Amino acid sequence: MKKISDEFMRGALEEARAGLKEHGIPIGSVLVHDGTIIGRGHNRRVQKKSAILHAEMDALENAGRLPASVYKKCALYTTLSPCPMCAGAILLYGIPRVIVGENKTFMGEEELLKSRGITVEVLQDEDCIALMSGFIRNNPTLWNEDIGK
Amino acid sequence: MKKISDEFMRGALEEARAGLKEHGIPIGSVLVHDGTIIGRGHNRRVQKKSAILHAEMDALENAGRLPASVYKKCALYTTLSPCPMCAGAILLYGIPRVIVGENKTFMGEEELLKSRGITVEVLQDEDCIALMSGFIRNNPTLWNEDIGK
Repeated sequence: MKKISDEFMRGALEEARAGLKEHGIPIGSVLVHDGTIIGRGHNRRVQKKSAILHAEMDALENAGRLPASVYKKCALYTTLSPCPMCAGAILLYGIPRVIVGENKTFMGEEELLKSRGITVEVLQDEDCIALMSGFIRNNPTLWNEDIGK
Repeated sequence: MKKISDEFMRGALEEARAGLKEHGIPIGSVLVHDGTIIGRGHNRRVQKKSAILHAEMDALENAGRLPASVYKKCALYTTLSPCPMCAGAILLYGIPRVIVGENKTFMGEEELLKSRGITVEVLQDEDCIALMSGFIRNNPTLWNEDIGK
């Protein structure tokens, strides 16, 4: 299997795949501070019957309580374009940089983030696209629940 | 003590006061579907060392996994104007109506919500204002942490 070059996006993709193994929605995220992962997470809708534990939220929660000064030096890596809730969390904490695995299967609030001064980089990684497009094809009802559709 | 007239905002205020008794941040929320409270919550930053359990998020989480059709008939009552994360969750799930206890001590993303077609009603309730202004005065560092400042 092709390895994506960015080690942090690889970490996010590992999280997404861990979620799939748990029969969950395969989206993963890592929070990086000064070159070190300080929080990892994946979508837990199925596993924890959670309405709020999207991958980005799970990574933020697992990073724990932090002062604003830490978030301001963070980057958030996520395999999929962030939904309004996760984009809002990025805005709340002022995380200045978001790296997105892909936005082909779902376009999140990238424009809102950019309009507030957040740097958004989209890799369009083929592994991220393949993982998510396969999942959506096989689980349309669950996927729609996750995005409020 | 003066009782606020709206029974659902009273429920949200009870949640906020329960949070204060737990030495937490006194913000409360209830999710109402077709005239019935289906989720209650309060800020759990202190209690659960949580970065994501704002009152609105806690209420959504406690309501459990729900299809979009339920959220579309919901109203969210919250003692304080919703921050970007909580506003994003409202947008994600398409909750059409948000009733805000007050926005004097903190102005959240009301304009964003309204720009996306959400109805936002602000009560400027004096009990909500007194509770929050007293808390912020006595706990400025904790409050700043909660809003990423």
